[in-house]
Amino acid sequence: MDLMKKSLEMHKEFKGKMEIVSKVPLKDSYDLSLAYSPGVAAPCQEIEKSPMRVYDYTMKGNLVAVVSDGTAVLGLGDIGPEAALPVMEGKALLLKRFANVDAVPITLNTKDVDEIVRTVKAISPTFGAINLEDIAAPRCFEIEERLKAECNIPIFHDDQHGTAIVVAAGLENALKLVGKRKEEVKIVINGAGAAGIATLKLLASIGYKNIVVCDSKGILYEGRSGMNAVKEEIAKITNPEKLTGTLDDAMVGTDIFIGVSIANILTKEHIDSMNRDPIVFALANPNPEITYENAERWGVRIIGTGRSDYPNQVNNVLAFPGIFRGALDVFATEINEEMKIAAVNAIASLVDENELREDYVIPKPLDERVVPAVAKAVANAAIETGVSRLYSNQQAKVI
Amino acid sequence: MDLMKKSLEMHKEFKGKMEIVSKVPLKDSYDLSLAYSPGVAAPCQEIEKSPMRVYDYTMKGNLVAVVSDGTAVLGLGDIGPEAALPVMEGKALLLKRFANVDAVPITLNTKDVDEIVRTVKAISPTFGAINLEDIAAPRCFEIEERLKAECNIPIFHDDQHGTAIVVAAGLENALKLVGKRKEEVKIVINGAGAAGIATLKLLASIGYKNIVVCDSKGILYEGRSGMNAVKEEIAKITNPEKLTGTLDDAMVGTDIFIGVSIANILTKEHIDSMNRDPIVFALANPNPEITYENAERWGVRIIGTGRSDYPNQVNNVLAFPGIFRGALDVFATEINEEMKIAAVNAIASLVDENELREDYVIPKPLDERVVPAVAKAVANAAIETGVSRLYSNQQAKVI
Repeated sequence: MDLMKKSLEMHKEFKGKMEIVSKVPLKDSYDLSLAYSPGVAAPCQEIEKSPMRVYDYTMKGNLVAVVSDGTAVLGLGDIGPEAALPVMEGKALLLKRFANVDAVPITLNTKDVDEIVRTVKAISPTFGAINLEDIAAPRCFEIEERLKAECNIPIFHDDQHGTAIVVAAGLENALKLVGKRKEEVKIVINGAGAAGIATLKLLASIGYKNIVVCDSKGILYEGRSGMNAVKEEIAKITNPEKLTGTLDDAMVGTDIFIGVSIANILTKEHIDSMNRDPIVFALANPNPEITYENAERWGVRIIGTGRSDYPNQVNNVLAFPGIFRGALDVFATEINEEMKIAAVNAIASLVDENELREDYVIPKPLDERVVPAVAKAVANAAIETGVSRLYSNQQAKVI
Repeated sequence: MDLMKKSLEMHKEFKGKMEIVSKVPLKDSYDLSLAYSPGVAAPCQEIEKSPMRVYDYTMKGNLVAVVSDGTAVLGLGDIGPEAALPVMEGKALLLKRFANVDAVPITLNTKDVDEIVRTVKAISPTFGAINLEDIAAPRCFEIEERLKAECNIPIFHDDQHGTAIVVAAGLENALKLVGKRKEEVKIVINGAGAAGIATLKLLASIGYKNIVVCDSKGILYEGRSGMNAVKEEIAKITNPEKLTGTLDDAMVGTDIFIGVSIANILTKEHIDSMNRDPIVFALANPNPEITYENAERWGVRIIGTGRSDYPNQVNNVLAFPGIFRGALDVFATEINEEMKIAAVNAIASLVDENELREDYVIPKPLDERVVPAVAKAVANAAIETGVSRLYSNQQAKVI
């Protein structure tokens, strides 16, 4: 594939994608005496006296670590910390390009949950926020939960929440088109990894009632054997009709299918068994759970994929740059549920009612309105929920 | 002090000193598809197959972590990881400015030796080398030794070796002026912290025989009470005349004094008790062990300080940028003794025999010949000692 060859050449020519440069003037020894010894003692002492001034005098407030153990990289799986680096640099590139956030890849040569938590916590004084990336489920859930509890900066696992937020935004608009209410629709999520479980949780928290999650063995239900602790918890809070069986059983009478699983598992029979006006977000990449062409031919009304060459691309870049921008702008201590929901609404509302169509329920990834809108909504949600360090909800909104 | 106020203003205006930018073209979605999904899978897979290609396709080969626990920052002491950040950013700035090395500050919220070793090891896949900075003695010695043993990239504690290398280079030239041989001179090192002990070790390894180390309680000698393990080891390998007593006793008949201690502890009596043609490197900063004016008045022949406003400035910037440049250029697995000695000789030889004078035994910090000369010498020493990953001593020298 020519794109792959081109990408290799490009990476080799530049030896990676990011570099670290000075943003202060540095012409002579006077400049050096301000930036380094002896002048640098002044900001050090100010921060020692008033720790919050670290946000005034250092790069911390705009600096994100993109942390991975290399265990769930793209569709490539557990390729290790060195081979994961090009993706982490790519993420840093997107954060800079879309939201002017400085980001550093940090890949870890450990897969141990305790060790990962300890390491990220140890390096956290340097950073304004942490983006966890490509860490395999179910370890990713525990790692994120523990880091959120132990660190005083935002921790965000993009593979979970980025996907969940964009899916939720797309569904918000899709439901308007088909004239259904979120309280009454049935959703099947196929895939119980990082993205699937986060999507379930977010959809549940914004009011969807009937969600059924499937893994490779079929429907998650209470009492099913061979489930890890996370899946057992999911089985308890989903599947209100207590369905059992396979994906085939789950699909009967469903309104929405969300696939975060593997290529080509949806058949014509699955689509035929869905409720009227089927909505299918088939996000396996590069080959979705159902091809766009088949979905169209078999009568799916609204189709989303992870691909840039079809309509309604579910692309995390709609979410994470604006979320980090907003969280950093108000010195948030965390990225909470309200901030994620604010991002969902901001993304959804960029598709104007007049423009809303089956092939346009999600804004385009390169739509320049997205990052500022998401950042503003997230920042205000942080202030309103009291997780901004510098602004309170007594003050006027700052952005 | 106006410089301090100016430095605060500058740090606040720019919110720190470094930023992380893209070095690849990024105009449209095709560029994005090369740099990120799906094209980025190509370098990931190449690195998975051949791990050394991480140096071809990522920023690792030019990326250094500047790691500190904030316990021995400038003369300020244990100010913590946030307050240490301006110094670490400053170090990153110097690495970029002088040697085009990309460097990221990483400050740690732990002072535990095991935890620091574990953390640096865990993040090491990302980096081409690690610069340890401002970690208090004696913990810094164990941390560096263990990391050198456990990591496959260079580990360099600049507070130790940077100072030692520049001092050794200065002494090399100073001895030519006074016509003494290193095998016969007596040296007193006052200060048994990171810089003092590293200087001792380097000087011993290049042929100095008679070195006496003092700490705040006086001369280190075998059997003295109240010494930590490091000092006990030092007592064994130094002080061949088995002197005891205070700094006053040590100074009698010495040829060279190296101070890495505190301001104004050298008296006229100390200087009077030295051998002919005294050499004094008084490196306490900002106020040296003896003022330049007193040293001159009391008959010191060659005077070095840490200050930029006097001759013979012992400034680490003469050493570490070229050392990292050289080590990274040949993909060294470590920075060994031979590479440090190569740096000493490279720095010393930049002072031409015709120019050599009492007030010019060390090149100026901004002398543009320094970094290339040090880098070349260090790279070749790495190749010759077999610690280069890509070049062997069977090949022609590469630089």
